[in-house]
Amino acid sequence: MPHLLHGASATTREGLTQTDAPVFWDGDAIGYIDQRALPAELLVRRARNVDDVVEAIATLAVRGAPAIGVFGAYGCALAARAHDGTERERAFLRIRDARPTAVNLGWAVDRVRARADGDFLAEAQRIHDEQIAIDRLIGESAIELFPSTGAVLTHCNTGPLATAGGGTALGAIVAAYRAGKALNVYASETRPLLQGARLTMYELRAAGVPATLIVDGAAAITMTRKKIQLVIVGADRVARNGDTANKIGTYALAIAAAHHGIPFYVAAPRSTFDFSLASGDAIPIEERRPDEVRIDAGDAVYNPAFDVTPARLITAFVTEYGIVRPPYFESIPDLETRPSFLAAQSN
Amino acid sequence: MPHLLHGASATTREGLTQTDAPVFWDGDAIGYIDQRALPAELLVRRARNVDDVVEAIATLAVRGAPAIGVFGAYGCALAARAHDGTERERAFLRIRDARPTAVNLGWAVDRVRARADGDFLAEAQRIHDEQIAIDRLIGESAIELFPSTGAVLTHCNTGPLATAGGGTALGAIVAAYRAGKALNVYASETRPLLQGARLTMYELRAAGVPATLIVDGAAAITMTRKKIQLVIVGADRVARNGDTANKIGTYALAIAAAHHGIPFYVAAPRSTFDFSLASGDAIPIEERRPDEVRIDAGDAVYNPAFDVTPARLITAFVTEYGIVRPPYFESIPDLETRPSFLAAQSN
Repeated sequence: MPHLLHGASATTREGLTQTDAPVFWDGDAIGYIDQRALPAELLVRRARNVDDVVEAIATLAVRGAPAIGVFGAYGCALAARAHDGTERERAFLRIRDARPTAVNLGWAVDRVRARADGDFLAEAQRIHDEQIAIDRLIGESAIELFPSTGAVLTHCNTGPLATAGGGTALGAIVAAYRAGKALNVYASETRPLLQGARLTMYELRAAGVPATLIVDGAAAITMTRKKIQLVIVGADRVARNGDTANKIGTYALAIAAAHHGIPFYVAAPRSTFDFSLASGDAIPIEERRPDEVRIDAGDAVYNPAFDVTPARLITAFVTEYGIVRPPYFESIPDLETRPSFLAAQSN
Repeated sequence: MPHLLHGASATTREGLTQTDAPVFWDGDAIGYIDQRALPAELLVRRARNVDDVVEAIATLAVRGAPAIGVFGAYGCALAARAHDGTERERAFLRIRDARPTAVNLGWAVDRVRARADGDFLAEAQRIHDEQIAIDRLIGESAIELFPSTGAVLTHCNTGPLATAGGGTALGAIVAAYRAGKALNVYASETRPLLQGARLTMYELRAAGVPATLIVDGAAAITMTRKKIQLVIVGADRVARNGDTANKIGTYALAIAAAHHGIPFYVAAPRSTFDFSLASGDAIPIEERRPDEVRIDAGDAVYNPAFDVTPARLITAFVTEYGIVRPPYFESIPDLETRPSFLAAQSN
């Protein structure tokens, strides 16, 4: 298993083998890093049944669109061991519905379900192996987009924790840095759950990439005063026209980037594209509990976990097939038709 | 003393008379609500000397550009009782420099210093009385800008706590609501110190105005999905060309409002205009401690407390002299020449 957390030392818990992989198959359970405990503690837990899987996804112990795809796939393998027939199908659907916005979860569950020979664990492991390879290709594709030196901005967390591979947007930043680009990364803290402050700063520190934390509201002044050269983020679901659902705050960053003439990139594997959706209007936006935000228990809260950035604000997508540029009404349908060479490779 | 907190019941502390005024003269000290303790506790404290005054401003126990002007003015009256000659002048300058961005503090200290008959307390009280009258006029001026029904968005805190009067932007919202406009107010929480979540939600609740809290990153999606009709914020310093320094996050809101064709208003008294500054480039931006933001003590942080919104993104200013519209190179210099009728009234 590659050292996905770039050498962070792992604490062992519950008798698991020491590891720093965010998600891994552990023989009769799924091992995972509980992302809620970071950065204070690197807590490795195990999901033993469908309830554990659903709870870990719903409470964001495991989060990040590709990571919950991988985790959900292993979850189906767990479910298939304990249940069959209608019960198995119900378990698959419970996992599929654990969070609504990211398309990867449904995509991964459907792929495991469709495995003809019933070797669900093999299919989950293939999805995981592919994600690691895909992330590497995304990183390699992205390098050319980065300046040789300068400041870049990212939002939320899109590193190894978010994908169970090397990461999408954050993986691209790390790849560019390791390719010799002298980057300084500005990471927005990402309220309400602070995935930027807690997870991205942790992963950048572990990777040895210079990083500076800002509050979400400081992104616009940072673009001007710190001379941001590009913004790169991940995605939870991309519609066929390029409209992109991602962590709340992304839309404002895209508007501000366009206002300042700064390129705005979305790094995402093909599994994050929902070719069945004509536009972002049809992407379900998860609204989470008011308690994530409010201080006084009586306060009304509007707490969407995601927003939708219109395609026109996105300079390009970075995928495992390379850079996908406008016009998206041509390039995204073209992406759908590309051969699944990763699946072919791993056969 | 008017009930500036709209009827919130006050806790008495340190033997002070019960009050709900954010700042008030208490015979031989300045009484003030410690805004850091809200909304959990309405803690009324007293500043007895220059050290207390400077600390209360620097730690944001008292905050809001007009409020620190009023508080600083009373602070000068305190200083003048204890010190004279060079020491008094040094005390005045310490208060003047307690925070750099808001111009009201320097303006108020200079006005007290310049009082010819040496009755500094009378000048401070006049500044306070004027602020209360000015806020009322700002509120009345703003009513026409609001739709008869719909959603509006504000940022940070600009109510009674922020001005020691009725408030600027929040005072305008409350005035419009009381004039019969069926508003629903979206308040952004305003990281890192959460003045929106802690103070604005508290003041709107006390005023009986329907309010919904959002994270700062949710403002752009709120503009579209909740049909925001206008954005109104306060200011810490307005340059002669209309460039406006205000709480971090304001610039991003202004960009997003312009992107969506939503009017963006700044409510501020004339004392917030710095007619000596040609543009916002010359406004000093306070950078505060990394600990306000970071989770890991090793993380680098860029923590500007304010940003500067260019004049072109501001639909109009709401002042005690009415609505100030573009072209600002005419209307703002004109504002400078207007007679100080409030000072005349209170004679």
